[in-house]
Amino acid sequence: MIKVSVLYPNGEGKNFDMDYYCNQHIPMVGGLLGDSVKAATVEKGLGGATPGDPAAYAAMGNLYFDSMESFQNSFGPNAEKIMGDLPNFTNVEPIVQISEVVI
Amino acid sequence: MIKVSVLYPNGEGKNFDMDYYCNQHIPMVGGLLGDSVKAATVEKGLGGATPGDPAAYAAMGNLYFDSMESFQNSFGPNAEKIMGDLPNFTNVEPIVQISEVVI
Repeated sequence: MIKVSVLYPNGEGKNFDMDYYCNQHIPMVGGLLGDSVKAATVEKGLGGATPGDPAAYAAMGNLYFDSMESFQNSFGPNAEKIMGDLPNFTNVEPIVQISEVVI
Repeated sequence: MIKVSVLYPNGEGKNFDMDYYCNQHIPMVGGLLGDSVKAATVEKGLGGATPGDPAAYAAMGNLYFDSMESFQNSFGPNAEKIMGDLPNFTNVEPIVQISEVVI
């Protein structure tokens, strides 16, 4: 299983609209990628290791695919439309990581 | 639901022993924190947004708790022992993020 994580850095001057993200962006992505998406999760950053520390990421969105090929084949043709939606909910450039689910 | 993510940065000179992590560290953490841990997942970084890009994180470990209190009450008394195990599998200082599971 492949996990695609999209991490939105937190910080001064950075914004992130969780409402738009959950109710507009994620459903749009799900609609475009269809059955190749096996699961989607979203987390909102609360804090860091020490109480009072800010969270490194304001939000993390994760999509799960059966394989790298399944991700690339479904995301590739829709990448422009999906990335074009980012300015509607954030002014930061996310960190994208592709991982293998080990446990 | 609270998700505690431990992100191990990738890079030149950084190492991470996935075998030790999955077979020694995670079971030790599970044993120490007990029933307060509702789920644990581990991912191995494969790459970034563009094919050929390195993954930002060599590994991501995630623990799920019912609440922030449940996390703090179970992790606090065991923090020293858990953090003391890190040099056994990595030479990097992880980024720890506490998040609320939204979706």
